[in-house]
Amino acid sequence: MTFGEILLWELMGTAALTLLGCGVVANTVLKKSLGFNGGWLLINFGWGFAVFVGASIAAPSGAHLNPAVTVGLLSSGQLPWADVPAYFLGQFIGAFIGAVLCWVTYKMQFDTHDEPENTRGIFCTGPTVPNRFWNTVTEVVGTFVLVIWILTSPTISMQDGGVPNFGNSALGYAAVMFVVVGIGNSLGGPTGYAINPARDLGPRIAYAVLPIRGKGPADWGYSWVPIAGPLIGAVLAGLLTQILPG
Amino acid sequence: MTFGEILLWELMGTAALTLLGCGVVANTVLKKSLGFNGGWLLINFGWGFAVFVGASIAAPSGAHLNPAVTVGLLSSGQLPWADVPAYFLGQFIGAFIGAVLCWVTYKMQFDTHDEPENTRGIFCTGPTVPNRFWNTVTEVVGTFVLVIWILTSPTISMQDGGVPNFGNSALGYAAVMFVVVGIGNSLGGPTGYAINPARDLGPRIAYAVLPIRGKGPADWGYSWVPIAGPLIGAVLAGLLTQILPG
Amino acid sequence: MTFGEILLWELMGTAALTLLGCGVVANTVLKKSLGFNGGWLLINFGWGFAVFVGASIAAPSGAHLNPAVTVGLLSSGQLPWADVPAYFLGQFIGAFIGAVLCWVTYKMQFDTHDEPENTRGIFCTGPTVPNRFWNTVTEVVGTFVLVIWILTSPTISMQDGGVPNFGNSALGYAAVMFVVVGIGNSLGGPTGYAINPARDLGPRIAYAVLPIRGKGPADWGYSWVPIAGPLIGAVLAGLLTQILPG
Amino acid sequence: MTFGEILLWELMGTAALTLLGCGVVANTVLKKSLGFNGGWLLINFGWGFAVFVGASIAAPSGAHLNPAVTVGLLSSGQLPWADVPAYFLGQFIGAFIGAVLCWVTYKMQFDTHDEPENTRGIFCTGPTVPNRFWNTVTEVVGTFVLVIWILTSPTISMQDGGVPNFGNSALGYAAVMFVVVGIGNSLGGPTGYAINPARDLGPRIAYAVLPIRGKGPADWGYSWVPIAGPLIGAVLAGLLTQILPG
Repeated sequence: MTFGEILLWELMGTAALTLLGCGVVANTVLKKSLGFNGGWLLINFGWGFAVFVGASIAAPSGAHLNPAVTVGLLSSGQLPWADVPAYFLGQFIGAFIGAVLCWVTYKMQFDTHDEPENTRGIFCTGPTVPNRFWNTVTEVVGTFVLVIWILTSPTISMQDGGVPNFGNSALGYAAVMFVVVGIGNSLGGPTGYAINPARDLGPRIAYAVLPIRGKGPADWGYSWVPIAGPLIGAVLAGLLTQILPG
Repeated sequence: MTFGEILLWELMGTAALTLLGCGVVANTVLKKSLGFNGGWLLINFGWGFAVFVGASIAAPSGAHLNPAVTVGLLSSGQLPWADVPAYFLGQFIGAFIGAVLCWVTYKMQFDTHDEPENTRGIFCTGPTVPNRFWNTVTEVVGTFVLVIWILTSPTISMQDGGVPNFGNSALGYAAVMFVVVGIGNSLGGPTGYAINPARDLGPRIAYAVLPIRGKGPADWGYSWVPIAGPLIGAVLAGLLTQILPG
Repeated sequence: MTFGEILLWELMGTAALTLLGCGVVANTVLKKSLGFNGGWLLINFGWGFAVFVGASIAAPSGAHLNPAVTVGLLSSGQLPWADVPAYFLGQFIGAFIGAVLCWVTYKMQFDTHDEPENTRGIFCTGPTVPNRFWNTVTEVVGTFVLVIWILTSPTISMQDGGVPNFGNSALGYAAVMFVVVGIGNSLGGPTGYAINPARDLGPRIAYAVLPIRGKGPADWGYSWVPIAGPLIGAVLAGLLTQILPG
Repeated sequence: MTFGEILLWELMGTAALTLLGCGVVANTVLKKSLGFNGGWLLINFGWGFAVFVGASIAAPSGAHLNPAVTVGLLSSGQLPWADVPAYFLGQFIGAFIGAVLCWVTYKMQFDTHDEPENTRGIFCTGPTVPNRFWNTVTEVVGTFVLVIWILTSPTISMQDGGVPNFGNSALGYAAVMFVVVGIGNSLGGPTGYAINPARDLGPRIAYAVLPIRGKGPADWGYSWVPIAGPLIGAVLAGLLTQILPG
């Protein structure tokens, strides 16, 4: 698969991921939305279905949609280094575009929201109890679960070039959806489960640059945590699979 | 497949779709219903399972159930123009019939509801913040996601004559259900996600003509938005797939 | 399959159905339960998973679990009359046993509930607005949707002797679960969706005969509605499939 | 499969199970969590997805993850006695490790919780109405449903050596997830559905030994109920399958 094709499919899939993922948070946070105050399970199913839709669309490139997945495959020895830039570029650009589309979709709700300074959570994650070390630990654990599942699950087989094969059916992607909803339900409480550097940084940049009415700061001080934590978790999972029995 | 067969299966499937879809809204809106005030996730799962049931039933005709899906297949070059009238006719008639059956099912709840002037939302969609342009944009985005997923998903292959093949199993229809629940969760907040002209217009006509106790106006001024938005989104998705590689 | 085998598998599957189905209602109704006040979606998923478990167990007999399904297959011409008594007997006895097991499981919660006269709803259905005609209509519509889906869905093929084949995998049963959750979400509001005479009558008899602390009346006046409605709906669906093309 | 391999895969799978399972309870119990007060359905889906993730990871050893499943297979005559110690050891050690990881993930939320004496429920189960006999009965019924489903479900076939084969796809594990969510929804109200001695004892030991801020007692007086109940239920289910036809 060419550089451009990888970039294109990852971009489209990750755009769908953050459009729908940020969208469900917008729906529960913004007061003039029908899903206002819809609860944590709604948010988690929203992100799960967002992964499902994005992964289906990005099937040709293996549907990483997440630099941590790319790094996990890399550190387990299943992806050539040469493909990494195309994956990363598609993921970050796509995540940015999805967040912009989310804002466009909810434009009227953003414009009429009565606490406009508190809309950053629609775009990117943040801790309920700020502590750089423990917040990072939480992201490491969540991402480790995601990547170890991808690398060991019998539902996924790897093709040449690190393209996970989910059986070319909806089934595999439903499985990923279950895992993501599960991580959100169970491990998302402390930090909002970025478990994906692109999913956090792309929308955070969008929040910083979009003319969102009355918006607050983008909290760049925290922004490295949802990048470092997922990457550490992914490397740990990838290395572990190298020592597991076949 | 003959004109009559397409019409019959689309009619039956779309009737099931709006019977169950309008039904879940009736269940949460009408005060004497067991699901009263059941929340946004209940409504979205209700519509998702409505699509699942309707699509299973309408499998012989490819289970479009939605003029936007028909138009998406048309604009991606996978459906003959000659089949379009049978699809449209079945979809609009079916959507009307399903809404009538919903009213019949909830007859006692309609008759005892204490805010009868506010029951239009059971039948058709409306914006939380009225703005024709941005409301249309929201419907364009939601429908674009639906149609691009249908057209690119590896879970669906096209047979001759534009009949999507969901693998002839429940699986494919579960996948559609996940996508519809996902769009509702994430993009349904501003306008109630028609993403289907028949789903909105058929029940709106039913609302206008049925002798519903104490009913309010049908809001024809808004009625073109959930027709135009989905059709624009579908055409954009169909055209995009013509330029995608692979 | 012998009379005894049909009876055994239907009995076991239907017992699982009402154990889990009545169980989820007990969990939301009884004050000392962890699921107290858990909401309509919890109840519907509970009944859906109850069908899933019961249908998996009763796979050898085709997992009818419901006289309406048996009658639907009969009226569509796919089941020999001679097998009907074994199905009915297994279903009603199983439904009674499951309700007894539910009471055993929640014994302490029944004994400590502070509104003991209002526990009938754990066992059997009742209308929110009593009206024999319209309540029956509601049950007809709900059961019609269930049976027409079973009879037309491409996920199910019929084997000799009216044993529906769900592909011998979990998939088919998940599909039934989706349909039942969908009917509950959308059509269950007025009467609590019996859509199954055994599911209602078996537990109603259990309620009448068990020494439940402080219990109220079994409401026999309503008890024929969740028998007649589902049977009428099933016959209508069965007859319709005989005139459908294909 | 060697002793070490069984132990390794059961350990990893059960660790994932209790990490995610205890995690979802932490998320709903601890006040500074995003899922605080998220409801019973969230908890049940959380445990269901926990089983899904753990079972996928432990596929090589048949994904028992639960001494009751091991005992059920044993008493149905499908597992050699010699393999039991490896299963048990992996399950209990894994369940302990998962609970420790849960505490690590929610460290900041534990440290800031305002009712620290009431956090035992995050780790292990307890009755809402204490009664040793009836609490045991509840656990017997719940585990019986789980094990009879595993032993009779057509979705699972047994390979040599008592390794259940879920079709080597995500599907089988999704089916287990449905069953566990169903048992939680329907039978979890009285005791919190341990239905697994390792899932209860491992985290209870973790609660007893971890330096959790302001923690209360581990309630060892109840600890035998979620061991005895599940084992009795599993033996009953295993024996029953030996007398079933087919």
